[in-house]
Amino acid sequence: MATILILGAGMMGSALAVPLVDRGHALRLVGTHLDAGIIDSLRADGTHPKLRLTLPREITPFAWRELQGAMQGVDAVALGVSSAGVAWACEQLGPLIRPGTPLFMITKGLVVEGGAVRCLPDVVRDRLPEPARSTIHPAAIAGPCIAGELARRVPTCVLVAGRDRASNAAIAGLIETPYYRPLPTLDVVGAEACAALKNAYAMGIALPAGMHERAGGQAGSVAMHNLESAIMAQAVLEMRGLVRALGGRADTASGLAGVGDLDVTTNGGRTGRFGKLLGTGLGRDEAIARMEGATLECLEILASLRDAFTTKALDEPLERYPLAEHLMAVALDGAPVNLPISRFFGADLAGADP
Amino acid sequence: MATILILGAGMMGSALAVPLVDRGHALRLVGTHLDAGIIDSLRADGTHPKLRLTLPREITPFAWRELQGAMQGVDAVALGVSSAGVAWACEQLGPLIRPGTPLFMITKGLVVEGGAVRCLPDVVRDRLPEPARSTIHPAAIAGPCIAGELARRVPTCVLVAGRDRASNAAIAGLIETPYYRPLPTLDVVGAEACAALKNAYAMGIALPAGMHERAGGQAGSVAMHNLESAIMAQAVLEMRGLVRALGGRADTASGLAGVGDLDVTTNGGRTGRFGKLLGTGLGRDEAIARMEGATLECLEILASLRDAFTTKALDEPLERYPLAEHLMAVALDGAPVNLPISRFFGADLAGADP
Repeated sequence: MATILILGAGMMGSALAVPLVDRGHALRLVGTHLDAGIIDSLRADGTHPKLRLTLPREITPFAWRELQGAMQGVDAVALGVSSAGVAWACEQLGPLIRPGTPLFMITKGLVVEGGAVRCLPDVVRDRLPEPARSTIHPAAIAGPCIAGELARRVPTCVLVAGRDRASNAAIAGLIETPYYRPLPTLDVVGAEACAALKNAYAMGIALPAGMHERAGGQAGSVAMHNLESAIMAQAVLEMRGLVRALGGRADTASGLAGVGDLDVTTNGGRTGRFGKLLGTGLGRDEAIARMEGATLECLEILASLRDAFTTKALDEPLERYPLAEHLMAVALDGAPVNLPISRFFGADLAGADP
Repeated sequence: MATILILGAGMMGSALAVPLVDRGHALRLVGTHLDAGIIDSLRADGTHPKLRLTLPREITPFAWRELQGAMQGVDAVALGVSSAGVAWACEQLGPLIRPGTPLFMITKGLVVEGGAVRCLPDVVRDRLPEPARSTIHPAAIAGPCIAGELARRVPTCVLVAGRDRASNAAIAGLIETPYYRPLPTLDVVGAEACAALKNAYAMGIALPAGMHERAGGQAGSVAMHNLESAIMAQAVLEMRGLVRALGGRADTASGLAGVGDLDVTTNGGRTGRFGKLLGTGLGRDEAIARMEGATLECLEILASLRDAFTTKALDEPLERYPLAEHLMAVALDGAPVNLPISRFFGADLAGADP
């Protein structure tokens, strides 16, 4: 068994610790400066205040100032920080990580940088100093995985998306448990694009629930499910197109990182609540205010996506993606919800009939 | 505007009448011998007892003994009967339908016949007498469309899947309204396979809700959504494989008839309730008894699918489809639920990495 260090003790970083200790690894969970309260609580009685759960005793918590000591003898490292914390995390880890160490991250997303769309594993690699940079192949974990459920051992399957086949296989071998099945893939672009885009599209799938409520409807089997599902199918079609345009495999959008993560994000929490609020007819500013400061990844990704279209970092006509275009208008500009279904499933994106 | 006759006044046949009259067509709704009570109610006060709704007055109801008169001057015909009623409907319509009449059907499915898997539009065509047979190209409507929602004008998009491009376009042109968007496709096999298979797979996606309840869990954002979504992604992957094996387009399974209809069926009603009951640990016989006689399409399609594998009408190794294999064992043989996630996303079906 190995010694694994997770940097970032938020919900997802900490949840990932559970399958790893169940697998028999020694687990060091290092909080960032934002996680001081969590580390204190774990040290006091083993409970994670955000997961509302007692974590296994085999997890050893560390404060971030103890990182250097905690990195001694570590066989693999997981990044559990948010995308905003990635630069900081690379700075901290860079001088400490041994060449060739398997490095995987639950942080996901796309960055528009220097006129190009880049995915986080590539960004992380570039930020590592030599010799780490040329010997480490960071992989991202993508797929349907609500942290609170992983921490409670609800079964799921995820992608391990990195550019090096052997590293991907090594990481998958380290983390597999009966309830956490990792599937290696070289399609980093596809997995990361889906991981980012699903937040935006899940917001769209949630709109009809709000529209139904606004029309005086009750929750039930007759609501606006037809529209939700038509939006979901259009979302998958647009994700396939965007993944392809970015150089990834369209089929990744039909799998765990696309369909799977999109579905779970719709069921899962704040993105869905925010979309539903917009669907009830609230303006975007009022809907944001109602979310009381919750992080809304959908807004971040829609802004990045618009940026990518505008700067031609993504060289595609925006009108080919009518759902994304409308979601930007609603969530970024405050336009009213008016789903353009007459423009859905355009032949240029769907492929020539048949 | 045209005169359109719908044969079958059940929920879906009657719901389809709503966009057609909104489009301005004269609409004749002919009940089968099973629909006598519905036709009586429509004649009395315009209400449809199963849809629990007053239908537009522009719909003229007919009893099936009046079919011959009702077929006078009809420009297009829609089949609104169940798959069990298709042979009867063809027998009735065959002598009455004019050559070249656009014919579309909300009846969907696959039939294992003479050692081959056939889709219903082809079966219907073969059952028509000449000259109808060589001049009519039946098309099936597939995609996310709960009848009670279509009848209430909830927006959706559907496929019009037939083997003749011009007929498909003519039908789509007849039925399009602002809230009902038809997309023509020549991929009859893909659309029909998805329309059938989604019932079986939706049952699978509903299992974790029952498992969660059995474990004492409450409904909420932390439940077994990860597992539901992993099953959904595996379902789409298996549907892509089965569609391809049957000679259809795999991408159809990623679209409205696959992802879209699968999603809405999970939200929609009895298939989901049945899957949830199985997930709580009830045996299949007890779960069926609890459904109090509701039609369970999922059982029919799982039996047909097993038949297709067994007779080699579908010449694929069953072990390539671990989810379908398990759903058959649970729903047909009474095996306990034990989802084989370690066999999900096998490389042979997912395609070589990447």
